[in-house]
This record gives sequence, structure tokens and C-alpha cells, in this order.
Amino acid sequence: MTIENNYFDLTGSDALMTVFRNHATGIAIVTSTDSEGGPIGFTASSVTSLGSKPPLVSLNIAQGASTYQHIRPGKLMAIHTLDADNLPLAQQLAGSRESRFIDGEFEIGPENTPYFKLASSILLARVVNKMEVESNALVVLSAESAHQNRSPEEPLVYFQRGYHTVGTRLKDNF
Amino acid sequence: MTIENNYFDLTGSDALMTVFRNHATGIAIVTSTDSEGGPIGFTASSVTSLGSKPPLVSLNIAQGASTYQHIRPGKLMAIHTLDADNLPLAQQLAGSRESRFIDGEFEIGPENTPYFKLASSILLARVVNKMEVESNALVVLSAESAHQNRSPEEPLVYFQRGYHTVGTRLKDNF
Repeated sequence: MTIENNYFDLTGSDALMTVFRNHATGIAIVTSTDSEGGPIGFTASSVTSLGSKPPLVSLNIAQGASTYQHIRPGKLMAIHTLDADNLPLAQQLAGSRESRFIDGEFEIGPENTPYFKLASSILLARVVNKMEVESNALVVLSAESAHQNRSPEEPLVYFQRGYHTVGTRLKDNF
Repeated sequence: MTIENNYFDLTGSDALMTVFRNHATGIAIVTSTDSEGGPIGFTASSVTSLGSKPPLVSLNIAQGASTYQHIRPGKLMAIHTLDADNLPLAQQLAGSRESRFIDGEFEIGPENTPYFKLASSILLARVVNKMEVESNALVVLSAESAHQNRSPEEPLVYFQRGYHTVGTRLKDNF
């Protein structure tokens, strides 16, 4: 048994950032309402399934995000999956707050939740819990209902600080 | 303002599964040790950065997983990013427990943590917290050190129940 302590030559934030630049993530946009019922939203690379029985979702958000104060238990949110055609939408919801919601581009769903029909699919989910960790938070949501507009061939992924599509299918895993 | 409640025509687990089939996720393998110091590990599609100051990582795991009992605060784990060449490794760590660790394929690092040098990069991270939610759990880890073997051009992603590579770069986001 060889113990190679010197192999791990990067530390702390450098270690984290180097490794996560090599890790691809799916891109989603997440929308909800502020305390006056107005639309809020952001682009997220942390949306993950947390089991299907019961159907739960998790996502990470910085406590410093402008939307964070509105994300609390009971709040309904819309999680949108995106494909390559939705790149402008991903950029828009990652841009300045004032330009995220443009009249005519989005619809209003249950509990005033804004949503974008351009997305490949949209999941309505309700916040059940959140865990604050340092300056970030893990949010757990319960999936309630959804609509699929299309089964995307080229979902949007984030990798090496840029937006990409998914490429070659290597292997089924049915 | 048009409220379209009928638009969301899928419910519960169907809603969740339909939407997440449209969402791509990065594939990682995660390794650690059991109570006797032996190697344990699994393939994960939920590894996510949770902020870089301090450097934290989150991942989701089913409480029914064979490795779950060993994942508790203080435990050191190795998170491996994978590229297309690592597909056999992703399949191996998602397969039967007996065939996940084959002598000669892996090394032993700090605190007996097994790791695979074939991976594009490897992050050592220590469990700081976990939150059990229904039959699953969210695990938060603190990034300690890492090694990068290469900057992968084709990271491995999971989409529509199959392994894929990342395709066309659409847009930088520096």
C-alpha cells in the first residue's frame, strides 16, 4: 500500500476551482416571485434530483443573491430545463436584474409564478427546507407539476467557463 | 395577466422524472473508506460546487446506498471528475459492489482514501454536514486538496438515461 500525500498538490479554493472547471453541469433557470408578487429568477447550474419517491429537487444558492430573501419554505418556484436554443434565455437570467423579465417573453402561472414557455420543460416545485452553510444555502423543493414542450436533443451544459451543448452519446444506461 | 393552471399537465414523480430526463448532469465518482478502512465508492451525478470562499461541495445520496452508513462528519472522500475516456470507470463504480475496486487500478491516499489516477482530476474533501430528507440525504464537504491530471476536452455527462460527452462550445462566459 503506497500512501502518496504529495500527489494532492492544490489546496483550498484553488483545489475546488480547478476540479470544478473540469466538471460539466446542466444549466437551468429558476423563477419565482418577490414579496410583492413580482417576477424574480436566476440561472442555476446546481439543480439536481433528490429522489423520485417522494419527488424532490435540490439546488444551491448564494445567500448574497438578490433573490435569496424570497426563497423560503412554502414558496412555489419554476425550474426550467434548457437546450441550445435557449442560450439567450440562460444569459438573460444570468444578467442584470432589470433585464431578466421582459413583457411578452414570459407567462404567469399558479401563485403568480412567472415561467418561460421557450424552455424545453418546466417543473413547478415548492420549497420545503433550506440549510444555510457559510455564505451559501442548499434548498430542497417538492416537485408538484410539470409541462414538457419538447424532448431536447441538445441540452445546455456549462463547462470550462462557457456554455456548451451535449455531444456524442457514448452508452445507454437503461 | 393570464393564469394557465392547465398548462402543467404532469404531476408528482412523473413531473420530476420527465423534467430531469431533459436535464444533463456531470458524472463524477466518489470514493472513501468503510469502518474497516476498506475502499468504498459510487458514481454520482449530483456533485456540485457550494461556493469557493470557503471551498465547499455538495452531493446527494440515497440513504439506502451501501456506502451511506460510512458517510459522516469528519470522513475524507475523493471526488473524481471524469472525461469520455473514463466511461469504463463510471460504469464500474455504478456496478456491483464486488467489482468496483480491482487491485492495481486504484491508489491509496491520505487516511486510506482510495483514488483512481485515471480520472481527469481528483478532489479530497471532508464531510462537514449532512441533511437527511425523506429517503435521501444532502452531504456538504469542505474541499482540502486536489490534483489535476489533465484538462479534459470531453467531460462525461449523463442525459436521457445515457452517458454522453460535451459537444459544441456555444459561448464563453468569462
